[in-house]
Amino acid sequence: MTHANELDATELVRLTRSGALSVTDIARSVIARVEARDDDVRAYAYFDSDRVLEQARALDANPVKGPLHGVPIGVKDVIATFDMPTQYNTARYEGCRPGVDAACVDILRMAGALIVGKTVTTEFAATARGGPTRNPRALDCTPGGSSSGSGAAVADFQATIALGTQTGGSTIRPASFCGIYGWKPTWNSISREGLKMYAATLDTLGLYARSADDLALLAELYEIDALEGAAIEGLAGTRIGICRSPVWPKAQAATQSALSQAIARLQGAGATVTDLTLPEAFDRLPDAHRKIMRREGRSAFLNEYRATPEIHEEFKVTVENRDNFSVADTRAAYRLADQCRGAFDDIASDYDIILTPSTTGEAPLGHAMTGDASFNSMWTLLQVPVVNVPGFSADNGRPVGLSLTARRYQDRKVIAYARLAGALFAERQSQAA
Amino acid sequence: MTHANELDATELVRLTRSGALSVTDIARSVIARVEARDDDVRAYAYFDSDRVLEQARALDANPVKGPLHGVPIGVKDVIATFDMPTQYNTARYEGCRPGVDAACVDILRMAGALIVGKTVTTEFAATARGGPTRNPRALDCTPGGSSSGSGAAVADFQATIALGTQTGGSTIRPASFCGIYGWKPTWNSISREGLKMYAATLDTLGLYARSADDLALLAELYEIDALEGAAIEGLAGTRIGICRSPVWPKAQAATQSALSQAIARLQGAGATVTDLTLPEAFDRLPDAHRKIMRREGRSAFLNEYRATPEIHEEFKVTVENRDNFSVADTRAAYRLADQCRGAFDDIASDYDIILTPSTTGEAPLGHAMTGDASFNSMWTLLQVPVVNVPGFSADNGRPVGLSLTARRYQDRKVIAYARLAGALFAERQSQAA
Repeated sequence: MTHANELDATELVRLTRSGALSVTDIARSVIARVEARDDDVRAYAYFDSDRVLEQARALDANPVKGPLHGVPIGVKDVIATFDMPTQYNTARYEGCRPGVDAACVDILRMAGALIVGKTVTTEFAATARGGPTRNPRALDCTPGGSSSGSGAAVADFQATIALGTQTGGSTIRPASFCGIYGWKPTWNSISREGLKMYAATLDTLGLYARSADDLALLAELYEIDALEGAAIEGLAGTRIGICRSPVWPKAQAATQSALSQAIARLQGAGATVTDLTLPEAFDRLPDAHRKIMRREGRSAFLNEYRATPEIHEEFKVTVENRDNFSVADTRAAYRLADQCRGAFDDIASDYDIILTPSTTGEAPLGHAMTGDASFNSMWTLLQVPVVNVPGFSADNGRPVGLSLTARRYQDRKVIAYARLAGALFAERQSQAA
Repeated sequence: MTHANELDATELVRLTRSGALSVTDIARSVIARVEARDDDVRAYAYFDSDRVLEQARALDANPVKGPLHGVPIGVKDVIATFDMPTQYNTARYEGCRPGVDAACVDILRMAGALIVGKTVTTEFAATARGGPTRNPRALDCTPGGSSSGSGAAVADFQATIALGTQTGGSTIRPASFCGIYGWKPTWNSISREGLKMYAATLDTLGLYARSADDLALLAELYEIDALEGAAIEGLAGTRIGICRSPVWPKAQAATQSALSQAIARLQGAGATVTDLTLPEAFDRLPDAHRKIMRREGRSAFLNEYRATPEIHEEFKVTVENRDNFSVADTRAAYRLADQCRGAFDDIASDYDIILTPSTTGEAPLGHAMTGDASFNSMWTLLQVPVVNVPGFSADNGRPVGLSLTARRYQDRKVIAYARLAGALFAERQSQAA
């Protein structure tokens, strides 16, 4: 029999709401999994089994069963929780308890979710310097970052859903490296209150799951805009734009191969696949992303910089503006981003969905660095919804995903296509095996 | 002799750093003032004299004297403080203690400021429904909102500096109604971490002071961009654009008169004053502001709406999208705002500084409503720096201010001109008296 911790949220909720499964049983299965695997994976910065069981019993005793009743959820340790420390993986906040849930956690709790622990983040979700977490699909590799623990926990059945954040590629990269679904919603369509800030124009809550159905469940919970148009039930006739993006030269063999396989498979399913080449202005978006991130990081980290003289060099580079970006540079970066955001709305209207790489390739060896966000930063700056769809792998067996994207507020459409593409990509892999 | 609570921060810091004045003496003068006036003005949601004295003694005992050593500061009660409750003027958060300072407060404390209390806000800094605070310059009138207590506390010498926020006109309006300086910095140039969110595109920390010098001191503290070009030392030859703005028909007699007097006076000081008429696209910005505020408020207040069924109708209108704004409406609003932001950068380059109304007129009678934000919302959406300059009054004696603005990141320039204009406007008043 499948253990409860291996089911997706959609299935768990069906079982808990019908009374077939208790939340305490779910909690026990998660605790057992964490105990068995924590030495290897190290996904959690804080995990208290007693507290998890106590919450589970309270949920079992509650006659009201919410839409996420009993679903075990890991929360990235840059997101505030009232009953657990929020430590940002930095010394200044050791043992710190903000006393109030972040808005996104508040909503999960009201829906009956079981908040199981705080997952490992890179320091302030900012540096590329990795934490202790290992990739559950390849322990000698990074799980990606900065949402390292969240990606690893979901991939390793130590949580069913996990919350992350993305300012560069911090949600999509771990999803690709760990072989799970990762959703970066349209900017600001889920409240970021209670999340450590880095760059307000970029910071986005991210969500991990092992099925696209679970992302749809979360979209419902957070009242994401309804689909415009009819339900999406198949790929035949779908107009898919392939956007290799301005950083395509960085794509490694695994990503090149995944994209080729995906195209062939989508065509096989009857989709109309065409190349989408973005206007030249978009070539400058990665640079604009960097300038905006640095500019907004200056004010976001000024207090940490003052409080902690030994803070990581990366924050000094940011706060001291060591790149010497001028005010004119900043204005130009915002202006370019604003223009491209509007232009992308028009461009994307010619396609049902857009497919693009998630990462340069599979997870690199080692844990010191969490990988490259080159394929993510443009989409983050455009503020569009992105879902990583798992299903492919490199020759060495490590997972690699691909991203689907569309216009702002079309998150439900992206999730619906992710469901179809995910089934197709998984099928493709097993045929190849 | 002038009481310490009546001095500005610039003067206080000179005295505390030289050892001529103790922080405990400053604290006592503030406590005495609050005790004498609180029944009338009701500026504070939380004020604990013992806690103020305890902090003051600790500052006096500290051999390190920061750049704001001993300056008494009021903090709007939507901004987190580790040692005082943060209650948002709403039942759900009664007695709530977030346990961590907001980034802006963290910086003030590191600079040696004396955080004296939490000032009254409208509920979640959102509704126009007023709190208990009265305008110290006219007790039968509103001090404006949502930063009601912060504006009143500074105007009434119950704090030297106060923090507010602005999403529509919540910083500039109380400054105009209470006759003090109010500064809405360029968007995101001071971290908004630890502030209750409403609309991420609009939410801005606001700062109150009784002198422009104090705003300059705060700009230094928060590392606002340096002046581009030479120091600003006089008004002769200054190119001033008069922007009556698309909502000019709403200007009442007091605002019309203040603007006419200001123009005459500025011309008298040798400035070149010309009318600045914005392109037609700007006429649609107030509507875009409303759509963006409502859209972003949907996700910001979703958790409060779920937790509090009896929440104020305004939040229901927002979260339930009772205006039926479509996704297309939202995209169009953002696109317009993006375009106008770029266009304004170009337009504003033709002037040294821009003068525009702060409010429709003087503070209205009563406390139920905090007034009209029509003259502020466009600037908030454009994300430019704005300073309310006090100095004029209506025939009934109530204060009315005018706003100075410029391109993004030109906060220091706006403050420098506010200093010159403030002196000129005050002079004008005394001549008329």
